[in-house]
Amino acid sequence: MRAVISSLVLTAAVAATTAAAQDAALAGFGPTAASAERGLEQRADASIDKADLDGWLKQLTSAPNNVGAAHNKENADFIAASLRSWGWDVKVEPVKVLVAYPTTQKLSLSGGDPYAADFTEPAVAGDPDTAKQAGVLPGMESYSPDGRVDAPLVFVNEGLARDYDDLERLGASVKGKVVLVKSSGAGRWVKPRLAQQHGAVGVVIYSDPEADGFPKGDVYPTGAWRTERTLQRGTLGIDSVLDAKGAKTLQAEHHTADLSIPVVTIGYGDAEHFLRALGGKPVPLRWQGGLPLTYHVGGDAGVHLEVASPWEWRTLYNVVATLRGSTWPDEWVIRGVHHDAWVFGAWDPLAGTTALLAEAKALGELARAGQRPKRTLVFASWDGEELGILGSKAWAERHAGELATHAVFYLNNDTTGRGFLSAGGDPSLAALVDGVAADLKDPETGATVQARRLAKRAVDAAEKGRNAEGEIVPQRLGTGSDYLPFAHRFGVPSLHVRYGYDRDGDEESVPVYHSLYDTYTHYQRFGDPGLAYVGLLAKTNARLVLRTANADVLPWRYTSFATSLGKDIDRLQASADAAHRESQRHNALVDNGAYGLASVAYRQLQPPARVDEALQAPDLAPLRDAQQELLAAARAYDEAAGAASELPAAKAAKVNATLRAFATAWLQPAGLPQRPWYRHLLQAPGRKEGEDVAPLPAIGDALDAKDTAQVKQEITLTTEATRKAAALLKTATTQL
Amino acid sequence: MRAVISSLVLTAAVAATTAAAQDAALAGFGPTAASAERGLEQRADASIDKADLDGWLKQLTSAPNNVGAAHNKENADFIAASLRSWGWDVKVEPVKVLVAYPTTQKLSLSGGDPYAADFTEPAVAGDPDTAKQAGVLPGMESYSPDGRVDAPLVFVNEGLARDYDDLERLGASVKGKVVLVKSSGAGRWVKPRLAQQHGAVGVVIYSDPEADGFPKGDVYPTGAWRTERTLQRGTLGIDSVLDAKGAKTLQAEHHTADLSIPVVTIGYGDAEHFLRALGGKPVPLRWQGGLPLTYHVGGDAGVHLEVASPWEWRTLYNVVATLRGSTWPDEWVIRGVHHDAWVFGAWDPLAGTTALLAEAKALGELARAGQRPKRTLVFASWDGEELGILGSKAWAERHAGELATHAVFYLNNDTTGRGFLSAGGDPSLAALVDGVAADLKDPETGATVQARRLAKRAVDAAEKGRNAEGEIVPQRLGTGSDYLPFAHRFGVPSLHVRYGYDRDGDEESVPVYHSLYDTYTHYQRFGDPGLAYVGLLAKTNARLVLRTANADVLPWRYTSFATSLGKDIDRLQASADAAHRESQRHNALVDNGAYGLASVAYRQLQPPARVDEALQAPDLAPLRDAQQELLAAARAYDEAAGAASELPAAKAAKVNATLRAFATAWLQPAGLPQRPWYRHLLQAPGRKEGEDVAPLPAIGDALDAKDTAQVKQEITLTTEATRKAAALLKTATTQL
Repeated sequence: MRAVISSLVLTAAVAATTAAAQDAALAGFGPTAASAERGLEQRADASIDKADLDGWLKQLTSAPNNVGAAHNKENADFIAASLRSWGWDVKVEPVKVLVAYPTTQKLSLSGGDPYAADFTEPAVAGDPDTAKQAGVLPGMESYSPDGRVDAPLVFVNEGLARDYDDLERLGASVKGKVVLVKSSGAGRWVKPRLAQQHGAVGVVIYSDPEADGFPKGDVYPTGAWRTERTLQRGTLGIDSVLDAKGAKTLQAEHHTADLSIPVVTIGYGDAEHFLRALGGKPVPLRWQGGLPLTYHVGGDAGVHLEVASPWEWRTLYNVVATLRGSTWPDEWVIRGVHHDAWVFGAWDPLAGTTALLAEAKALGELARAGQRPKRTLVFASWDGEELGILGSKAWAERHAGELATHAVFYLNNDTTGRGFLSAGGDPSLAALVDGVAADLKDPETGATVQARRLAKRAVDAAEKGRNAEGEIVPQRLGTGSDYLPFAHRFGVPSLHVRYGYDRDGDEESVPVYHSLYDTYTHYQRFGDPGLAYVGLLAKTNARLVLRTANADVLPWRYTSFATSLGKDIDRLQASADAAHRESQRHNALVDNGAYGLASVAYRQLQPPARVDEALQAPDLAPLRDAQQELLAAARAYDEAAGAASELPAAKAAKVNATLRAFATAWLQPAGLPQRPWYRHLLQAPGRKEGEDVAPLPAIGDALDAKDTAQVKQEITLTTEATRKAAALLKTATTQL
Repeated sequence: MRAVISSLVLTAAVAATTAAAQDAALAGFGPTAASAERGLEQRADASIDKADLDGWLKQLTSAPNNVGAAHNKENADFIAASLRSWGWDVKVEPVKVLVAYPTTQKLSLSGGDPYAADFTEPAVAGDPDTAKQAGVLPGMESYSPDGRVDAPLVFVNEGLARDYDDLERLGASVKGKVVLVKSSGAGRWVKPRLAQQHGAVGVVIYSDPEADGFPKGDVYPTGAWRTERTLQRGTLGIDSVLDAKGAKTLQAEHHTADLSIPVVTIGYGDAEHFLRALGGKPVPLRWQGGLPLTYHVGGDAGVHLEVASPWEWRTLYNVVATLRGSTWPDEWVIRGVHHDAWVFGAWDPLAGTTALLAEAKALGELARAGQRPKRTLVFASWDGEELGILGSKAWAERHAGELATHAVFYLNNDTTGRGFLSAGGDPSLAALVDGVAADLKDPETGATVQARRLAKRAVDAAEKGRNAEGEIVPQRLGTGSDYLPFAHRFGVPSLHVRYGYDRDGDEESVPVYHSLYDTYTHYQRFGDPGLAYVGLLAKTNARLVLRTANADVLPWRYTSFATSLGKDIDRLQASADAAHRESQRHNALVDNGAYGLASVAYRQLQPPARVDEALQAPDLAPLRDAQQELLAAARAYDEAAGAASELPAAKAAKVNATLRAFATAWLQPAGLPQRPWYRHLLQAPGRKEGEDVAPLPAIGDALDAKDTAQVKQEITLTTEATRKAAALLKTATTQL
């Protein structure tokens, strides 16, 4: 029966025409206001012009856009001038930061074969931008320490903790050696740090073709995918911090203070040459990649590795534009995309910037025509994201007081393509996203965006032998773009929105990620031909912004928020149980010699070492009780909010103040115990390798630190915050 | 706690020395008899001589051993003479069969590039056998229909049903074309039949390196693995049948009466050339293999394919040797390995034949010394296994009456290597296998064979985050070797035993499977250096044989049998439920257009077609009740049998007769409804692609045929057989 029910829901969604959706209720609006709001949105749509999009994307991507490049500053000026011309109040806010781009990078084989890696990417036929090599940064890991080493080369798969465990079982070590690792599996900054902890003296990162090379599809320019000479650029900085005063200059050197060994990045053509030179044992099966050879651990072949990367002060330019709200000017709806890119940056991020320009033009024109939004819009074009989310962090710190007082919502874009709408963020925003998706038409299929999301979810689930159940709830945000300070430090309900083809088992990584080939031509051929989805993204963003800015009562719903918290509690419990059980089991198998007996002689594996036993799962019952209270309060609020018709402004203001208090109820002023910059009890970037978002990070971090007392305390704090949030929802319900 | 318990059990097993095991109880023997039996086994061990093993393996593998080759006959004669010299009563039983080896095989590209595939394998340095090319069969699919076609080439992944579904979604077809498919995923015979059903006019099978080539390890002769020129040979015959009279001549043409298109097999070096010539769309991600190119579906490049393979009558030589039992000569313990091979056949099967020779010598010497087994031993060296299990099938049919009267047990070997003991077969034999494994020492680790099995199981489970629970129960047999007629047609409790490294996620397929490189040298380097495991296999077999031959009461236990039946019922129920649910869900998603909306534009997939809805899961409650009755009876029997001390011969004979009746209680004289040659209600070869064994095949086949009435009837028959078997166990318990 379930299949049938789920099918009926989907059929209804597919059948829903935009016309029918016109009459659907709109969260936060009474019936009259809803109709006016939809009218406004359609007027905004009419301002979004394909020729504009194409011209802007072409212009924005016409030269390298890294921090310090002239064209990045020209883009900032162009964006500022454009928004000004559309009636926005624009500021360009400079920030001084330390930047490190290499002046020397060398990697070559020692001994008979003097093969040397090439850190440049050649021009390809049919893409004129790729011939513009002036000012293009080489493939590199920015903020790499300087260094010059001659040492044997060892292959360590993805360079993650379990790879070093495997290496130890193989009887090999990276001590005093240079490690060669794949770029997959975790953020680039993880790898050099782990290598250094294991005694390596240098790191070479390469993109194995298995990730996004020829096994995924034809390579560029025939197809979209990574060639053997496609390189990456990226930052080794992680938690950049600000100077004591709240930061006019962002001290980027803190990024890599813990790192002392040189790091380079190469393409898979060069990697194949180095891998072929390696002797030693064949690798464990799961280490083998997509190159046509048997991978070996190495140990004999030596390399010369050299990096010189002087640090220099450069200036970032954040462009921040304001359109003052007509009714509640002190409530800010913030919208951002970064404008810096590693090279031309069509996918990452300038398609998103193009959408932002289109929205700004449309909303500016509406305002000029007397249709000013009720809340103030703050549109930001950030700089320095690629160096470590520097621009948005600096702005948020400088404006921390204003953010606390005014910020209502933050909406982010970054890399975007075509296909399915993907919206990560605060679960209270699910209804807002669903409503917008139901009102928009998908260019490829003519169905609504929501119908396509539902179809994708149903097919993904079917491929796993399951039904898709319940509603689509945004996944909480981890790290990777400019939402970071807003979501995790200031507790602003945030969304990160894009279009893409990501599907389980068919994931589309962007195959030109951080390379020279992320160009206008590539984007028009493979990203979003005709820019139909850039236009759709602008419409999607404009609706998210306008519905938040104009809603009498903020369009937030909490049942999903509470059930999502329940799932996070379940997950934390299950993962703590599993970690405890697995560490016990592992040690039992070590102690009784099972690993030795179970090993395969020709692989010559040594038994693994004992591990520290993980803490037993804590007692989460108080938090569960609080979550149940929150769920009940959420259901009551959602029902009342859905039933409420137009509210008097004073009443609405009271409800809105309470809802905003709910959003910040989860902040710990002193920050999370293990990482004080982060303040949100329900979300933070993942700390484990390959984990994007850490649910319940205060408790989880304490568990990982094996600090039982701290675990108890964090459970208490999270429980108290949950009870406080539940009380606020009860208040909001009475205020409706 | 579970981890701890499981660890204690394992620790105990690891600590158990062979000395301590000496005193352990032996199923089927009283304490005095057990001690005598163990003494006997150690005398047998002493006869197993490494120089013998090495000499025999070298001699047996010194020339090609396919049916019709002179050396295969020489091996039969040598085996016969050897057993005779050790005091066995030996018969060589010839069987005439139709054999088809190609005289012409051609595969070349049409058009500009005249590239042609090579069906020979070159000699490699360091392996002198590989230079002996006289009489070596080419890489081929025996019994391929003759044919000569010029047609476009299409790549269809593994050539399985879901691959054709994918191809349809890509808008392509194999109609009138030659298909190129990987050899993995299912038996070779499946692929041409499916291709033909879809309208193909020819088939090319190749071994993609992802299966057993360079991604798994260094290729031969550096390492063990498949080179770009390593080929396969194999048979397209499936259910060979006998002539009406019960068969002096086996009519092998029935093998392929349903097949009319030519089939060849090539290496991955040649396959790469053909794959590179293919145009068309890039393949679905899961089709991509291990070669360094983006695989395409094809459609443009044409090939010329030609096969001429005249059919000729040849003679098989089954060698069957008897050692008459001292006490119960009419009860036969049968032991078999085939001796034909595609080329030299060191791994497959002559290491097993070498073990059989060692056992025959040891047991012959014991008999000469007055230690004749109580039951009659029948040792068989089968011929024609590679052509479709022809020799053992013919022998079993000819001796059907004797089998029904005399056969107690069948023990098979085929391909074997080193590492972990693997024993598939009747679950009633679990205790027998465990007892033997506990008494033998593993050469690589010095622990008992049982300790190593338990360790492997514990580590495999731990890698999946689980504890290994319960005892090790043999998996019922499917197809693939000479146990087939004994287990599935005559209901003889059977075991198929080997040593190998197979592990979940680290599976060791034999990387020279059916190739020229399956040589003495390869086996000594990578199969079993020093032949320590061939010797261990001989000791293992000798114990399995002797303990069955000498036990007063047959050493069979039934709790595992009954719980295993319970699991098969659960599995059948779950898979029927899943098939029903999934077909419904699939059709719902087709009907509401979800597949279209969920598809990724650049892949240009068409929505799939509706499927026939699978039957609802049947009511298995009566069978479950019967299984519970069987379980109770099994527990009672096992307890009583464990407690019984030495029984008077007459009493033991009655129990044994009842246990043998239990074994055949599962046979349907008329055969399974969809495939009458098979008669066992609890096991048959799998019918679905890639499924080795079909549990509860009578019910399962009827479900697949969507015949509700038949399903009911088969449930009734299986339930009745289960009740009858339970009654027999109750009788046996009273007879103890």
